[in-house]
Amino acid sequence: MNKNISQTLEFMKAALKEANKAAKRNEVPVGAVLTDQSGKILSKNGNRVREMKDPTAHAELLVLRESSKLLNSDKLINCSIYTTLEPCAMCAMAISLARIKNLFYGAFDQKKGAVDNGPKIYASNSCQHKPNVFSGFYEKESEELLKIFFQDKR
Amino acid sequence: MNKNISQTLEFMKAALKEANKAAKRNEVPVGAVLTDQSGKILSKNGNRVREMKDPTAHAELLVLRESSKLLNSDKLINCSIYTTLEPCAMCAMAISLARIKNLFYGAFDQKKGAVDNGPKIYASNSCQHKPNVFSGFYEKESEELLKIFFQDKR
Repeated sequence: MNKNISQTLEFMKAALKEANKAAKRNEVPVGAVLTDQSGKILSKNGNRVREMKDPTAHAELLVLRESSKLLNSDKLINCSIYTTLEPCAMCAMAISLARIKNLFYGAFDQKKGAVDNGPKIYASNSCQHKPNVFSGFYEKESEELLKIFFQDKR
Repeated sequence: MNKNISQTLEFMKAALKEANKAAKRNEVPVGAVLTDQSGKILSKNGNRVREMKDPTAHAELLVLRESSKLLNSDKLINCSIYTTLEPCAMCAMAISLARIKNLFYGAFDQKKGAVDNGPKIYASNSCQHKPNVFSGFYEKESEELLKIFFQDKR
């Protein structure tokens, strides 16, 4: 978290860009980026639940699946995921199943978050691989996107 | 659970058949069936994590995605899912996100289960839709499949 902070912020910015693009598609604005251990971006995407008519098409699940396909492996050893919002239980567990090394996320989600809130997936004994978790990156920017999106819906 | 018990057992048998087929593909033997409210099977599948090189390709997620595609909707209102093993946190949350009405499962999974074990996803406040849960169908048959599979691995 020291020498790589500028790179981390760069990836989080790329994730925010994906969240912005998701908002324009009328999707809940969450974006994610997945990198390999050398810091190369393998996949970036935003929420596509409505577009794909797929309840599992959260940004995190999409980049996990795309990166697995690219690396031809169901284990993404030493990879990192950057996401604008605290993952829900589905995404948090998928990140564990994929053996992701580091999870960086933006805003906390007291309602549906499942890492530091709610079921706290990585704190459970049923979780056999626990990624390193770093949070709070561009928290306000991530929250603002969601706030505007849900305000417009009312 | 009264007059439909024979139908429930029939769907669980179909899920077990999918689990058996998964074992033959050298996948962890878990199978799932998804039906609409009239009791028509929309999708049935088994675990394909290795074959698809996809960490999210659990039987439950596959039938959720296939059924959503079929119904052209990310919400599977009034649908039921039948799975041979207690879902993990990823699958349990996906079942909730898809608004599945009823979850029927076979064996309990004290290790990775997330419905009646571990993080108990549906008991959490972060879970906004909680399906009705029925368990213990063909429990021994489901367990036996898994036991044989993991014995062969050693």
